Amino acid sequence: MNKNSSNTMALAPNTSNKRETVCIFGTGDFGRALGHKMIQSGYPVVYGSRSTQISNLIPKDAEVLGHAEAAQKAAIIIIAVQRQHYNFLTPLAEVLHGKVLVDISNNVKLNQYPDSNAEHLAQLLPGSKVVKAFNTVSAWALQSGTLDASRQVFVCGDDVEAKQMVMNIVRALGLTPLDKGSLLAAQEIENYPLQLFPMWKFPIFLSLGLTAFFLLYCVVLDIVYTYIYENNNFSFFIAITIPNRVCPVMALILLALVYLPGIFAAIIQLYRGTKYRRFPDWLDKWMLCRKQLGLIALAFASLHVLFTLVTPLRAFASWRTSKGIISQALNNKTEPLNHTNAWLSDSYLALGILGFFLFVLLGITSLPSVSNNVNWREFRFVQSKLGYLALILCTAHTLVYGGKWFLSPTAYKWYLPNIYILSLIVPCAVLVVKFVLIFPCIDKPLTQIRQGWERNPKYSE
Amino acid sequence: MNKNSSNTMALAPNTSNKRETVCIFGTGDFGRALGHKMIQSGYPVVYGSRSTQISNLIPKDAEVLGHAEAAQKAAIIIIAVQRQHYNFLTPLAEVLHGKVLVDISNNVKLNQYPDSNAEHLAQLLPGSKVVKAFNTVSAWALQSGTLDASRQVFVCGDDVEAKQMVMNIVRALGLTPLDKGSLLAAQEIENYPLQLFPMWKFPIFLSLGLTAFFLLYCVVLDIVYTYIYENNNFSFFIAITIPNRVCPVMALILLALVYLPGIFAAIIQLYRGTKYRRFPDWLDKWMLCRKQLGLIALAFASLHVLFTLVTPLRAFASWRTSKGIISQALNNKTEPLNHTNAWLSDSYLALGILGFFLFVLLGITSLPSVSNNVNWREFRFVQSKLGYLALILCTAHTLVYGGKWFLSPTAYKWYLPNIYILSLIVPCAVLVVKFVLIFPCIDKPLTQIRQGWERNPKYSE
Amino acid sequence: MNKNSSNTMALAPNTSNKRETVCIFGTGDFGRALGHKMIQSGYPVVYGSRSTQISNLIPKDAEVLGHAEAAQKAAIIIIAVQRQHYNFLTPLAEVLHGKVLVDISNNVKLNQYPDSNAEHLAQLLPGSKVVKAFNTVSAWALQSGTLDASRQVFVCGDDVEAKQMVMNIVRALGLTPLDKGSLLAAQEIENYPLQLFPMWKFPIFLSLGLTAFFLLYCVVLDIVYTYIYENNNFSFFIAITIPNRVCPVMALILLALVYLPGIFAAIIQLYRGTKYRRFPDWLDKWMLCRKQLGLIALAFASLHVLFTLVTPLRAFASWRTSKGIISQALNNKTEPLNHTNAWLSDSYLALGILGFFLFVLLGITSLPSVSNNVNWREFRFVQSKLGYLALILCTAHTLVYGGKWFLSPTAYKWYLPNIYILSLIVPCAVLVVKFVLIFPCIDKPLTQIRQGWERNPKYSE
Repeated sequence: MNKNSSNTMALAPNTSNKRETVCIFGTGDFGRALGHKMIQSGYPVVYGSRSTQISNLIPKDAEVLGHAEAAQKAAIIIIAVQRQHYNFLTPLAEVLHGKVLVDISNNVKLNQYPDSNAEHLAQLLPGSKVVKAFNTVSAWALQSGTLDASRQVFVCGDDVEAKQMVMNIVRALGLTPLDKGSLLAAQEIENYPLQLFPMWKFPIFLSLGLTAFFLLYCVVLDIVYTYIYENNNFSFFIAITIPNRVCPVMALILLALVYLPGIFAAIIQLYRGTKYRRFPDWLDKWMLCRKQLGLIALAFASLHVLFTLVTPLRAFASWRTSKGIISQALNNKTEPLNHTNAWLSDSYLALGILGFFLFVLLGITSLPSVSNNVNWREFRFVQSKLGYLALILCTAHTLVYGGKWFLSPTAYKWYLPNIYILSLIVPCAVLVVKFVLIFPCIDKPLTQIRQGWERNPKYSE
Repeated sequence: MNKNSSNTMALAPNTSNKRETVCIFGTGDFGRALGHKMIQSGYPVVYGSRSTQISNLIPKDAEVLGHAEAAQKAAIIIIAVQRQHYNFLTPLAEVLHGKVLVDISNNVKLNQYPDSNAEHLAQLLPGSKVVKAFNTVSAWALQSGTLDASRQVFVCGDDVEAKQMVMNIVRALGLTPLDKGSLLAAQEIENYPLQLFPMWKFPIFLSLGLTAFFLLYCVVLDIVYTYIYENNNFSFFIAITIPNRVCPVMALILLALVYLPGIFAAIIQLYRGTKYRRFPDWLDKWMLCRKQLGLIALAFASLHVLFTLVTPLRAFASWRTSKGIISQALNNKTEPLNHTNAWLSDSYLALGILGFFLFVLLGITSLPSVSNNVNWREFRFVQSKLGYLALILCTAHTLVYGGKWFLSPTAYKWYLPNIYILSLIVPCAVLVVKFVLIFPCIDKPLTQIRQGWERNPKYSE
Repeated sequence: MNKNSSNTMALAPNTSNKRETVCIFGTGDFGRALGHKMIQSGYPVVYGSRSTQISNLIPKDAEVLGHAEAAQKAAIIIIAVQRQHYNFLTPLAEVLHGKVLVDISNNVKLNQYPDSNAEHLAQLLPGSKVVKAFNTVSAWALQSGTLDASRQVFVCGDDVEAKQMVMNIVRALGLTPLDKGSLLAAQEIENYPLQLFPMWKFPIFLSLGLTAFFLLYCVVLDIVYTYIYENNNFSFFIAITIPNRVCPVMALILLALVYLPGIFAAIIQLYRGTKYRRFPDWLDKWMLCRKQLGLIALAFASLHVLFTLVTPLRAFASWRTSKGIISQALNNKTEPLNHTNAWLSDSYLALGILGFFLFVLLGITSLPSVSNNVNWREFRFVQSKLGYLALILCTAHTLVYGGKWFLSPTAYKWYLPNIYILSLIVPCAVLVVKFVLIFPCIDKPLTQIRQGWERNPKYSE
């Protein structure tokens, strides 16, 4: 015990600025980049290599030795080789006994192996203390010193002291260690740098597809139709007018799609009479990407706001205004204020503003730092109550805007409904079903089911 | 000692994917939801229950045993029963000795008991290692897998190893553990999920009250008065015109209310000649909700900006423009550019834009992730210097906007001042007093007092 | 060992609400403020002081004793004296042996001493457990209870248990402890509160200088020139028109300056044929402040958007519109829609909107909480791909806006180019060189170099 404790003391950084020697196995790109950085931070670095001759690529101040000699010089050994070569470490088991081995390896694809590289290493060398770290940092970033992305280094390992030592090195290099727990977390940490917005893929493809469809729909109805039947060339509509028709439609539909899976879930639970059975897979996946759908909807809504606000600056708008005013002036008359129009125009603008305002609020609460400071009850209040209010306001905004054209025959060019009629289908359906679901006679059993009650206990999984 | 250490080894997750058995006492909703989730994550789960017959609600793969037998099978026991039933655990003290007990209980209201449930449990079973965790997670969220709110699980406990074991389970369930320290933190953690924006209550009620008052005031002056005396029906003003009059007023007043308590504090300290006495309670509370007041002010300011920017899109605005232009055209004359008007309109717009810009900047720095990256000196610079600059700009914006109407008699309908005159009272008072406070003859003693100097040491508390 | 472990038990907070006595050495402002706060939080406080007579400034409920007697009463001693007086502690070494010493000192300037105060203290008293904490909290904030800035208290120390005890106190005072690792971090923690946006200095001075230059340039060309040659007094342009000319120019130039150092780096690496040599210092510094440059560019872009959107509300704009319409009306004719103009105006608005939208997206991803949730690959995708797309869109926006005036002789007042021509130089240069760099024949060797390949290995450092 005493020996153990004194060992620990020796490893702990108890002298103010003298750094412990660090050994690096492997002279590949990342091994060299890390070595450079460590030497800059004041660590003596020794490389362990099969041949000690490829030394001109290696940082000047580093020593290069054979694996065994290098390992003996340091308490921490960074394993900068690929998993498929880990076997060469087995003969060194005795030298590496009790040492801290830092696994920095990355795979080429997600879940490439059944177990993580770090766990594999720990199994090969049960006497060593394996710590997973540094794999989320890019060699290029280490080298160039421009770590403007995340400075976080995920660290995990079963030995608390070993982890502490690695975390001290991480801090000394100017990075921020983040303890992710035991070595069980290694799989997750190894998968992390391989992801490219995994939760965003489906929402983005969905919105791209829908956007393309609606763009085409608008081009056909607003440009092609006008060109053929009215012989007007409004091709410049493609820059602002049509995007500003597609964006609000996309925003409204995507916002409704955020709340649709909740509706489905409620119906399924009511039908099954229990909450203790899993939802179908598609519903689970849909529910998991609601935040992303909502944020994309917010992006479309923001674009809609910008496109709308620049309207008075457009040459087309000022030409149309002039034309209207001049025709009045030439007829020597002033039209009186149309009060219905004034009401309609002000109402849909006000509804839109309030809806957008709540939408932005929802977006802000979904920032990680804000949602982490909010408890479950507060989050549900914001996302559910305010979210539905935003959906109601935005749907009302669209209804009031398009209301007068609903039944007008000129709105149906080529017998196709206007685009905003299409946009209203999903949100109206969601709002109607939700309205039914909050009736006490339906809400009460649903609440009971969600608190654990079961209608037919035999159904339970 | 050896035995102890080997025990620890046995508990630590040293085998790559085999999970430790977890025991759950209690088969209520949360107990079942947690059990489901753990089984999904690969943990063998055994339930401890009085009767072993209500088994059809319990997850299929879980075992159900009596309390004592169940406890013997696991190192970690999750106590999913309510505090008032904790006494049934006392006879099991011997079985539970050395085990990790996870208290997941929640109360119905804030500070329901003098001590926290977890501390109560620790007192009942002094031989067990009590860890508080999971109480901030909702059973419904665990069940449905839709943990889109905070994934943080607050964990606290006196035994570091026990805490580590619980944190590993938390991570394995896909949640993020957050170590809140020793069991002393349990009270805070138990109160956490019961709160619904506690800091926001007063600011929100205050703004609702003020908004209602100003709305009424505007309706009376702008709609009722116009209807009675000018026989004009401007009822549609209620959609945009009046909100756009109330929002800037609210924004300006609330922004001034953010800086008013600091003024009061300075005056009180100057009067008392010491900083070592507590402020009156109302001032303390006021100071604590300044951030919330400021953010609500920012919300009103943003609405004001949106309401203002849609002006040219309103039917009323384009009617008014047409009327003006047509009357000029019919009179065959073009009015020359009024330079004073051009200066006034451009100045108040520019002042408003700059004020709003600084305001948004203040809002961004109050995001938790930004303010955590800013030290005290930087925070004071932004919130104090930039904040006062924003207040000055916004007040100037209002003054320039309304300047010409100040002394005009038509501005006083029914002898009531226009709303923007009301809005200027608080901000002007704050700015004037602050201006006085930065005179060296007053600033110097204030700075000394804040550095610990006392005028009359006998006054000290 | 047993004794040690029982000691630990005694120190750990195992009784529900009884707090450990805390000793404070020093009765200066911060010592008193901390004492007050601790007494409020239920800690018995004992002050250690040379003379025990200056007691009226000290919190009422605190005891004042000589240093040695005070130290004996507590396990934790807060050293609230300045570094230059630390020597008085040396004779107390025996009393302080095994105690936790909390160093809360701050320096007056960055890196004032070669070693940190905490490390100096640890060297003076090797038998004590030194923990650095509390130095980032302001005494005034502690006193007034208005901790609306960061509640984070950075803690570091070599002894894990000692650190844990201090972190418990931090939590009990309502603050958030943040473990920064071993005592090596003390230097960084001591420098932290002395900084005032160190990374922002260069970008802010650069933008202030450029802004001043462009403002002057515009005033000369737009106001002075017009006044002299056209005898028009457009002095009110200084409120909106000219800022709205300078802001987009600044935004575009600064955005280009964000991507310029990356271009330089690529060229240098291609020329040297290796990445293993450091960049020149100016390039390193430039690369480190790219985020700040980008955020300032975003601020200018936002101002540009606001200034542009208020255009229709300006008295000048509505005067100009009226004049145009009236002159048409008086001539009894309506101008047909100019399709080229409609295309141009809609295109530059649409390009500007999309560019600004991407710009805001980049700004959001640079929020700390967002960029911490994004891995290196995702960050590069957003900052590099989307960033260049934003630069392309904004440059195109400017080109389309000003396109028709490029070759018009009236655009060159006093033979000086219009300001937007100046603004296009840097972004166009960046885009052209970047376009060349992505040609395969250049991209391939560059990629190899960045993966560690060297053309002339002899060059390596």
